[in-house]
Parts: sequence; C-alpha cells; structure tokens
Amino acid sequence: MNAFRYGKSLAAALALSLTAGAAAPAVAVDTAKPLPGYRYGDSTLARSPVSLKDLDLLKQALLFTDEDTEHLRRAGTILKPQIEDILDVWYGFVGSHPHLIHYFSNKQTGKPDKRYLARVRARFGKWIEDTTDANYDQTWLDWQHEIGLRHHVSGKNKADNAPSVEQIHLRYLIAFIVPISATIKPFLAKGEVSPEQVEKMHAAWTKAVTLQAILWSYPYVKDGQF
Amino acid sequence: MNAFRYGKSLAAALALSLTAGAAAPAVAVDTAKPLPGYRYGDSTLARSPVSLKDLDLLKQALLFTDEDTEHLRRAGTILKPQIEDILDVWYGFVGSHPHLIHYFSNKQTGKPDKRYLARVRARFGKWIEDTTDANYDQTWLDWQHEIGLRHHVSGKNKADNAPSVEQIHLRYLIAFIVPISATIKPFLAKGEVSPEQVEKMHAAWTKAVTLQAILWSYPYVKDGQF
Repeated sequence: MNAFRYGKSLAAALALSLTAGAAAPAVAVDTAKPLPGYRYGDSTLARSPVSLKDLDLLKQALLFTDEDTEHLRRAGTILKPQIEDILDVWYGFVGSHPHLIHYFSNKQTGKPDKRYLARVRARFGKWIEDTTDANYDQTWLDWQHEIGLRHHVSGKNKADNAPSVEQIHLRYLIAFIVPISATIKPFLAKGEVSPEQVEKMHAAWTKAVTLQAILWSYPYVKDGQF
Repeated sequence: MNAFRYGKSLAAALALSLTAGAAAPAVAVDTAKPLPGYRYGDSTLARSPVSLKDLDLLKQALLFTDEDTEHLRRAGTILKPQIEDILDVWYGFVGSHPHLIHYFSNKQTGKPDKRYLARVRARFGKWIEDTTDANYDQTWLDWQHEIGLRHHVSGKNKADNAPSVEQIHLRYLIAFIVPISATIKPFLAKGEVSPEQVEKMHAAWTKAVTLQAILWSYPYVKDGQF
C-alpha cells in the first residue's frame, strides 16, 4: 500500500528488495525470444464459453463504447514505453504484501519463485499492450479464457511448470481491478495529453481491466451462474 | 449507455418512460415506514463466511485505507441529498437495456415487476448511505453476505416475495462496479469541494463498491475458490 502512497520510487525499491532478498539471483527473460507461455492467437486454445454476443452485452453493462477503444489505443502509445516502470510498481505492490506474493511462492518453501515471477512478469508486460490493442474478437475471447484458467486451480502453474500454490483466490483476482487501474493514471498523465484525455483513457482502461477480470472469473463460478 | 452519454436528463426520462410504459401504475414505497426487506443490523442474519481478518487483507489489496473512510464520509454528505437523482440515473440505465431490466422482470410475463423494482429501489437508496457510512465490522460483513445471497439463485426474490427470474448472473454483478462508480462522479462534483477532493472521494467510492461486489460474489464461487 505504501508503494502507492509514496509513489513509484519506493515501489521500484520494493521490487528491487524483493529480488535482492532471495537466495537465488533474479531470473531474466530474454525479450528477443518468444514470450514463455504466451499463446494469444494460438488456434489450438480451447474456445471461450462466453459468446461474442454475451461479450457485447457485457460491454454495454460496462458502458464500453467504440470511443473507449480509441482511448485505449491512445493510452497504448503512452504506456508502451513505460511498461517496465509500470511493472516495477505492480510487482513492488505485490512484493510488499505477504498475502499477495504468496501466490507466486514455492509451495514447499513458501518463498517467492524467481523463475515463475520472471515469466509471468514478461507476459504481464505484453498484457498491457494487448489490453490497449484489444479488438474483442473470438481469438481475444479464447485467450481471456485461457488466462482465467491460469489463475484457477485447473490451470495455475501449468504454462510455466511452476512449483507454486494451486490457485489465486477469486477475491484477489477481482480486487486487483483497483490497483491495476489506480496506478496507471500517473503513467497516462506523462503523455502529451490534456487532463480530460487522461480521464477518458483512464476510464477506458478501467473498463477494459474490469471486463477481463469478469471473463477470467468464469472457471471459478458454479455451473450456470456466470 | 445513452443515458450516460447524454447525461442525467435523458436518464431521468428513461426512468420515467420505464414507469409510464407499463400497464400498472408505479408503486411507491412509503419512506416513513421501515424499509421493506432491509435487515442491516439484524442479529439473526447468517454469519458471513468471510472473516474480519480476510476483510482486512482484501482492503489492503484494494488500497483501501482510513483516508478512504474519511473520503467516503465526506462523499456521504454530498450524495445523501441527491439520492433520488442518482437512482434515476441508475434505473434509467438499467431500464434502457433489456438484458439488464430482465433481472427485475416477472418470469411469467417477461415484463418489469413494478413492486419488486420499487422495493429494491428504496433499499438501493439506503445502500448509498450505508456505503458512505460503512464501518466494516462483523455486522456490516453479515449484511454484505445477505445482499450477495439476494442476487444469487439461493436467495433472489425471497426478501420481496417477488415473481422474478431466479438469479442475477455474476458477470453483471461485477460489471456494475463500472456504472455505479462512473456515474457517481458528477454527483460528487456538485459538492463544495475541490476537483482533487472529488477525485479522492470517487476513488474511495470505487474501492468501496468493488469490495462489496467481491463479497457479494461469495455464493457464486465453487467451494474453496473464493
């Protein structure tokens, strides 16, 4: 929480201390290679149980319009050069809360799993781009379903062959809408845009993140109740 | 959606047309009487399966601090005199989307159930106050659990003996974080406060609404995955 109150520098320090505090050295992901475990666009993914029609109705409930798509594109041009800084804030936040870093821990030792953290971090960076570039088609929908499964007990750790805890509880998956949205605003404000445009981009981002959290919740929900 | 794009006046008109378009006259709830179905503070309610400790951890994940509680109190003084106007916007939004007003419909006729709408509306107004006044204790937690059950197939319609559809799907329960948050900002801005204070009150409100949507999701989630 302090990471947010005192700004990015402390968050970065926390991210650093998380790395420095462990026995093993930090594991870097080679960004020139294909992202480990990244399967957006993979036609062999399972089809999402959510239809394009249901997605459209959901977007209406979220007040999501074509204008939001435009604001997201503009947000993308501002955020993409700042991705590592954004990830420092997010990882700093998670790393400073034992009950959150828990979800990245080795289930035997209870300590953060460096390799798992690094692989997820690399995909998380790409996820920022994908969120601002989203076209909300079937391929996108199928990838959202796969992401949901990777948080859920049925699929967590599999993509990374990670020795971590068996699930991320749904309550935190939804709760993260707030930090993932609130922390993005200062980064948007660094673009050469008016305060009004920052507000609009931020609102669009919040809707896009909420939409994804909803789709990711599917595997957690009792049959017929999603 | 249009209700939001074009502002409160159209939303109010939509709310009006919803009332006017039905066969039966609008059912008014007598606000001098105890609110129908309102049970906050009722010691016979079931105990929430979420502990106070889990609630505290969840608040941390939501960046919710004591300052947010203060901002909510200030928001309360601004919002309370505007409750009917706020409800007009929300009901206008729901009423203008068939897939949303569906959840208030008579399951036999498919038409909106006036009595059910009126009873829920009265509680919804009180819910605005309760959200700004929340003290997050066990009594509050138990009431959140009851509210969750009232959206879920296990408890919907019971408090109002309503002839409506059997559940509100979880996806819309979470999605509503966005309209319930986005639409409150113009009402906050009507207070005699600075734009910075509006931002802070709005952020606190958004966290408070997200927290409640999370708690309400409990009955929908598979055992052990909440």
